[in-house]
Amino acid sequence: MLVCVLGADGYLGWPTALHLSARGHDVVAVDSLIRRRWDRQLGTPNLVPLSSMDSRVRRWKAESGRTVDWVRLDLCDNQALRDLLDRYPFDAVVHFAEQRSAPFSMISPERAVETQVNNVVGTLNLLFAIRDLAPDCHLVKLGTMGEYGTPNIDIEEGWLEVEHNGRKDRVLYPKLPGSLYHLSKVHDSHNIEFACRVWGTRATDLNQGVVYGMGTEETDLHPQLATRFDYDHIWGTALNRFCVQAAIDHPVTVYGKGGQTRGFLDVRDTVRCIELSVTNPAERGEFRVFNQFTEQFSIGELAEKVAHARAAHGLETRIVHAPNPRVEKDEHYYNAKHQHLLDLGLQPHYLQETLIEDVIARVEKLRQRVRPELLATSSVDWRGGSRRGVSVTGRAARASAGGALVGAAGGRRTVAAR
Amino acid sequence: MLVCVLGADGYLGWPTALHLSARGHDVVAVDSLIRRRWDRQLGTPNLVPLSSMDSRVRRWKAESGRTVDWVRLDLCDNQALRDLLDRYPFDAVVHFAEQRSAPFSMISPERAVETQVNNVVGTLNLLFAIRDLAPDCHLVKLGTMGEYGTPNIDIEEGWLEVEHNGRKDRVLYPKLPGSLYHLSKVHDSHNIEFACRVWGTRATDLNQGVVYGMGTEETDLHPQLATRFDYDHIWGTALNRFCVQAAIDHPVTVYGKGGQTRGFLDVRDTVRCIELSVTNPAERGEFRVFNQFTEQFSIGELAEKVAHARAAHGLETRIVHAPNPRVEKDEHYYNAKHQHLLDLGLQPHYLQETLIEDVIARVEKLRQRVRPELLATSSVDWRGGSRRGVSVTGRAARASAGGALVGAAGGRRTVAAR
Repeated sequence: MLVCVLGADGYLGWPTALHLSARGHDVVAVDSLIRRRWDRQLGTPNLVPLSSMDSRVRRWKAESGRTVDWVRLDLCDNQALRDLLDRYPFDAVVHFAEQRSAPFSMISPERAVETQVNNVVGTLNLLFAIRDLAPDCHLVKLGTMGEYGTPNIDIEEGWLEVEHNGRKDRVLYPKLPGSLYHLSKVHDSHNIEFACRVWGTRATDLNQGVVYGMGTEETDLHPQLATRFDYDHIWGTALNRFCVQAAIDHPVTVYGKGGQTRGFLDVRDTVRCIELSVTNPAERGEFRVFNQFTEQFSIGELAEKVAHARAAHGLETRIVHAPNPRVEKDEHYYNAKHQHLLDLGLQPHYLQETLIEDVIARVEKLRQRVRPELLATSSVDWRGGSRRGVSVTGRAARASAGGALVGAAGGRRTVAAR
Repeated sequence: MLVCVLGADGYLGWPTALHLSARGHDVVAVDSLIRRRWDRQLGTPNLVPLSSMDSRVRRWKAESGRTVDWVRLDLCDNQALRDLLDRYPFDAVVHFAEQRSAPFSMISPERAVETQVNNVVGTLNLLFAIRDLAPDCHLVKLGTMGEYGTPNIDIEEGWLEVEHNGRKDRVLYPKLPGSLYHLSKVHDSHNIEFACRVWGTRATDLNQGVVYGMGTEETDLHPQLATRFDYDHIWGTALNRFCVQAAIDHPVTVYGKGGQTRGFLDVRDTVRCIELSVTNPAERGEFRVFNQFTEQFSIGELAEKVAHARAAHGLETRIVHAPNPRVEKDEHYYNAKHQHLLDLGLQPHYLQETLIEDVIARVEKLRQRVRPELLATSSVDWRGGSRRGVSVTGRAARASAGGALVGAAGGRRTVAAR
């Protein structure tokens, strides 16, 4: 199949492009490279040295003999996007190309607007381009489990059968997301469902859990093929951050009581889920939703797993609880279905101590590149943003993150009152 | 109370500003005047001669002795908005300031993006400004009944009690809206609910039905106080359009079978609903939703009512059925609750033949200003937009609408295939 991967410079987009290429699909890798710009603005350099996209696709050709076309393009540039769909008769478009950090979206009104506009406009442009230029092309869109929030009822895969006052209907599963970023994905989901219903678009919305791990079979082939690994307070996610904290002998920082439960999956399962979605397309007019994760854990459980894996090697790990900068329930019911991808053949890599040990071992080799101040609890507070109304940019961000640290390395981290 | 009316140049914003002023509230009327620009671009001049905002507030002062402050401002200009909230300590902000035409949003990718960006960004900026500068201020936001679509279960007011697999929760009422405009309001509702939950904002989301009528007690005081009256294929809504068609002896055009059922209300009830919402504010952190309409009708029933009102005067009215440019169910279950505003004291003006006769009589006096080509069924098709990918602007719009007419005035109108 001819597959477009939008957001191919990202943590998951790049491994997905390689995975699909390795399995014989023709891949066009597309990105605006905006994430590299954001990293410069926010002072959040990546842990792993990242090659340029040009070097990556050359290296992939050398390692695999397979060609991946690389195109720099911003989805918000409607004409450029239409030219792309005119040039390539894609069977599927995999859409990772969004601002994907919750803290980023909560920094300031400007960053909130940037997040929602970038994500909603890119997806809208894509829906129109598919309608007009490639109506049979299958849209595989990355959503997030965070769209659902933490309802007191079971979370279904996108749709809910409701009986109310003696009548029945199948409705979109109601959403109560936890950040303005997560909201942008809720907006996308509604827009995509509309395109399916009115234009006959075929779409799969992948509500993905929190991804962990440093790479896949393909990205591990050569250092130039490595994907990014985020551990900072803007882009980093729970387990990956915990592993970096452990690797440099810092305590593992849990927000609040740590009772927040979420769905998780290994990056090796992400690429397999995308492949399964692409090779088993949705029907024309179908808005298909898969919950893309393999296991549920509470944040506290994850921290314990890291401590346990370390203890097996005689190493001690402290777990500290920091005030939660987010507004979310500390304890709650959580039972999210995730059957559809298993039915298509997914064989999960369940979280094992060996994976945690492997990540920690790899991080230890990159120890010199870890910037401890980026491990602090977020400088972004859900209630007030990062210094009200002011965007965090380059130097300011570093100063803010540094200034927010109280206590020496290894001690308890708190955010100084502003 | 000190009340800000955003979108005060609009069909409903202007009568609302005057209604609140007449009842002793201090009103700041705000608008970007973009609708006047859109009318020039789209070739959709208003039926009623419209005074400038400056003339209107001067005339209102002369008629009532009351001052309304007029401020030209675009909500997408975050700094200007923050300056406004810094200057005035508002008790409530009434937010009408959105692109509100479904056909407009379906013209092209550019118009779709313009609609969603304008509406979502304006509301996001407002939510942040209230959080930072006026956290106790009550947001009264205009949503639409169209957010719900036409589910097969009763439509509740914003929230739904769900029992699922033996557990219960109260969730946001699921939405399946019918255009990219309606979707922008769904996005707003989700963003506002988040602000209430996380920032403690107090908000009332008014899911309004289709409004009819030419004015209110206040706008009728003087021709310079008149509000706009839309009858064209972009901005016009069902009953108002039918009255104009009848007034110039054209047949009344019903899309499809006319079984589409919606909620309706008199413009005099709109201004009263806003007043009731403002004077009975939501609690801090409450996301309150009212369904703002007074009666349900099918489109076919409305056409019959117009014909019946005319028949009482011995006049004959033809009803013709045109292909529906929208994608919507022709026949469906519809039972929408609308109790909350009645509980606050709303005394509805139910639709009577005298109102229809009054509107038709007023339109007849303005007969020379009616442009029959704007009564054609929409030049915007839900499936393909207005000539794929091309924005409709000024001359092009007129040519398109004119060119789409088949048959002489009084005959059946159809849209020529393109």
